Amino acid sequence: MTSLADLPIRDDLRGQTPYGAPQKAVRIALNVNENTHPVPVEIIAHVAAAVERELHAVNRYPDREFTLLREHLAAYLSSSGGGAAAPVLPEQVWAANGSNEVIQHILQAFGGPGRRVLGFPPTYSMHSIIAASTGTEWVAGDRDAGFALSPETAVAAVRRTDPDIVFLCAPNNPTGTPLGLDTIAAVYEASRGIVMVDEAYAEFMPEGQPDALSLLPGRERLVVSRTMSKAFAFAGARLGYLAADPAVIDALRLVRLPYHLSGLTQAAAVAALEHAPTMLRTVGAIREQRDRLLVELTRLGYDPHDSWANFVLFGGVADPHATFEHLLAHDILIRDVGLPNHLRVTAGTPAETTEFLDVLARMNQ
Amino acid sequence: MTSLADLPIRDDLRGQTPYGAPQKAVRIALNVNENTHPVPVEIIAHVAAAVERELHAVNRYPDREFTLLREHLAAYLSSSGGGAAAPVLPEQVWAANGSNEVIQHILQAFGGPGRRVLGFPPTYSMHSIIAASTGTEWVAGDRDAGFALSPETAVAAVRRTDPDIVFLCAPNNPTGTPLGLDTIAAVYEASRGIVMVDEAYAEFMPEGQPDALSLLPGRERLVVSRTMSKAFAFAGARLGYLAADPAVIDALRLVRLPYHLSGLTQAAAVAALEHAPTMLRTVGAIREQRDRLLVELTRLGYDPHDSWANFVLFGGVADPHATFEHLLAHDILIRDVGLPNHLRVTAGTPAETTEFLDVLARMNQ
Repeated sequence: MTSLADLPIRDDLRGQTPYGAPQKAVRIALNVNENTHPVPVEIIAHVAAAVERELHAVNRYPDREFTLLREHLAAYLSSSGGGAAAPVLPEQVWAANGSNEVIQHILQAFGGPGRRVLGFPPTYSMHSIIAASTGTEWVAGDRDAGFALSPETAVAAVRRTDPDIVFLCAPNNPTGTPLGLDTIAAVYEASRGIVMVDEAYAEFMPEGQPDALSLLPGRERLVVSRTMSKAFAFAGARLGYLAADPAVIDALRLVRLPYHLSGLTQAAAVAALEHAPTMLRTVGAIREQRDRLLVELTRLGYDPHDSWANFVLFGGVADPHATFEHLLAHDILIRDVGLPNHLRVTAGTPAETTEFLDVLARMNQ
Repeated sequence: MTSLADLPIRDDLRGQTPYGAPQKAVRIALNVNENTHPVPVEIIAHVAAAVERELHAVNRYPDREFTLLREHLAAYLSSSGGGAAAPVLPEQVWAANGSNEVIQHILQAFGGPGRRVLGFPPTYSMHSIIAASTGTEWVAGDRDAGFALSPETAVAAVRRTDPDIVFLCAPNNPTGTPLGLDTIAAVYEASRGIVMVDEAYAEFMPEGQPDALSLLPGRERLVVSRTMSKAFAFAGARLGYLAADPAVIDALRLVRLPYHLSGLTQAAAVAALEHAPTMLRTVGAIREQRDRLLVELTRLGYDPHDSWANFVLFGGVADPHATFEHLLAHDILIRDVGLPNHLRVTAGTPAETTEFLDVLARMNQ
């Protein structure tokens, strides 16, 4: 039998194993920061009807410019809290099959061989993986205590590494910790390259909190990425997007594969965005469970980190592997993100949170 | 206003314009080799129902391994004409958002900086474009007269260029011309790298004609790519796939973005494959129109090239631009593929073919 090692694979891929959070069939999956509330049934009917209409034209290639979808994403960003200083226009919006592909497009256009991207681990693991797969050098900056990132610390890393791209993550994954707009603005001022702020979890920030969109006007190298996978409960549909200067969008058109977004994806996402308030009505409940996790995990003797996302990273775990397996034995899957004495848990439904906390409490008795 | 030139875009992208067949709203679009017959209504209902079921889990990430879809694709390949010498197993199948992404995965795993891919222009234009975007050097081999590619000519190019990857296209696009299995086998023998045969139009080959799948057993570096965009009339759903040794599939897992195939795409494609014979029932009619084009274009004084695809490339066009514009003025869009004195037309419905031929005939009176 042929093995991978027998094939003329690229040298830098030899010995690697594919990315993958375990996909286990469990009763309570709190491992990949999904919205564990299903999409409301009335929305399912609306989205399904939109997809069915689109199927009448499925023999044709989709709109390569996903015009209608960009209009809906722009309208959503313009109306969402976040204190955007100016409305986001459709020509400022880009979308792809999940924010992973959005990140890849940014790296293909502005990174690549001979170029360097700066990130601040621990952060979203795909940032460095996609950097590698696009031949972009990944350099790591330090964080402050408690995984914070001050303007001074971030700017020092920019000065030291002179990156072509800086990846920031607000709030950060896997730590959940907030990132101040002052840090983003300072990094932008200090750098000559693209500054991409990954705001996958933006909708879970405290209400009324300004987001990075508010920094876009006048900053043509700033990119703010979002996703419908988290607050929108639309992970299965794979829709990531970003907002930036229209010139950035032009650059991404040079590297995207033609017709990269299917007509069905476009139709489904548009239909979901038409009901954005309904799609997002679980956000408040999820924030409550997150805040409950922060309180209860502390009460149980752990050290949870402040979180503006739909998950909580908690330290003070004596044996993460044992705790992970104990929860798994109770049909609860959380995530070991590889940080010593830490585990990460998604804020699920009230019942899921209760069960998670109960198992932990009994384990610690 | 910021322009692209003001941004820190990669040097090799400066001055480029994005790929794009014109997306014009015309009554008769025969320009991108779609299946111009809509999907049968009973299939639309079946696919829509499958998507609706999947939407109940759309808050969760999709099956990263698209297991059910791979099973259905393998079953389809095993049962399709083509004379496969051995059944294709699910672990031999890979899929992505259109065959463009399949090609990209192959180049990411086996090409990239310092590596070289050999193709035989004129051929599918995305082959060289994706080579460039993955940093793979593109080298061009010659063709024989009439765009044919003999084993001798192809092997000479392999010997001369020592490629890491060879792209073959059977039948070839944009010429429609067949490629013999003897050429594929000879290229495989002569090369040390991956040999990828793009069979996007395989279903339109003469009935009973063996396809490149029949060459897979014992050739672990051979890759055969397919698409649901053409014969399956599913271009809008973006589903490309390939069959190869399971070790090749393992290599592609290293470079694919996690969850690259949406749950909706997986559900829609599975539902369509459950009714493959119905989805493919227009293939015979399309072959008839292609053969009619070959006869009638000759009668009109043009030089059509033999075609095994759902389109015809015809030479002997004194002024391709004028003919293109004349057809467009009659609401008929075909394709100028940049070959001197040539144009390409998709074999559409009988009515579309009639109207295309009538406009041409009147123009030549």
